[in-house]
Amino acid sequence: MKNLLLSKVYQLLEPGPVVLLTTSHKGRANVMTMSWHMMVDFEPPLIACIVSDRDHSFAALRATKECVIAIPEVDLAEKVVAIGNCSGRNVEKFSAFHLTPGQAEKVSAPLVGECFANIECRVVDTRLVNRYGLFVMEGVKAWIDPARENPKTIHHKGFGKFIVDGETIELTSKMP
Amino acid sequence: MKNLLLSKVYQLLEPGPVVLLTTSHKGRANVMTMSWHMMVDFEPPLIACIVSDRDHSFAALRATKECVIAIPEVDLAEKVVAIGNCSGRNVEKFSAFHLTPGQAEKVSAPLVGECFANIECRVVDTRLVNRYGLFVMEGVKAWIDPARENPKTIHHKGFGKFIVDGETIELTSKMP
Repeated sequence: MKNLLLSKVYQLLEPGPVVLLTTSHKGRANVMTMSWHMMVDFEPPLIACIVSDRDHSFAALRATKECVIAIPEVDLAEKVVAIGNCSGRNVEKFSAFHLTPGQAEKVSAPLVGECFANIECRVVDTRLVNRYGLFVMEGVKAWIDPARENPKTIHHKGFGKFIVDGETIELTSKMP
Repeated sequence: MKNLLLSKVYQLLEPGPVVLLTTSHKGRANVMTMSWHMMVDFEPPLIACIVSDRDHSFAALRATKECVIAIPEVDLAEKVVAIGNCSGRNVEKFSAFHLTPGQAEKVSAPLVGECFANIECRVVDTRLVNRYGLFVMEGVKAWIDPARENPKTIHHKGFGKFIVDGETIELTSKMP
């Protein structure tokens, strides 16, 4: 994994991929599947996401205010769904799904070795947590696997239906 | 355009497509391009989005608390970028881009006839508006064009690079 400029984080999340979110709390790592997230600002990268109080990760995220957003490619799709179909309440997901935890630099939550990108995040705003489970976080360190070129991500359409990234088109834009 | 159940709105937005956001303020309609949005809840559908105070639409959205999120297919990609490359300050975008405004049922902002789906929204939470331009909205009425099957949307990767929807895969999931 190589350092990724924080100013490029939005390019990973703006397309709306399904991601994994890891936490570490009381000596125990956990990981959930998530696709309700969006960019809030470019640099430092601010990211909003929804982690429901029904999710086992909610307590860890609220208490530690730290997580890692890891982005899987389509080859991990079945695993990503399986991770979303069970709870950290009764499953040690890292071992159950043969995920390789990596040491993050700025947070205690683990990186996911199988993902092509990992973003270490700290929660910076909790005003909408009680009402919606909406956390605003800052990306404080980002990693990318340079060996993977043009990684194809997946996008959830509901009930286990996913769209895989197709062709890329380029249009003249003034938008960053 | 046909009525779409509000419980299905998340299936349109969760994959992270680039969308158009329309407003109507002081008798003037406007439209912007946006891809910083996410689902917040299923039903009623709650949607969060970022509209910066540098966007001309910001004042209209804050004042009227109403908008329409319209979802374009890939055939509109060039138009979507052009809409994002100019400002409602000095362009009448609906006429400049030959968009067909449609009468919404519950809000004053117009539907976009060229888009395959339109979601009428009312702002329900403005606590994070001053700090981040983050609006939480409720989808109050949704429309879909039944003539368009499997519409392909676009996802922004930065600087005018877009991914087009590719193949669909189905995996057994307990996730809605």
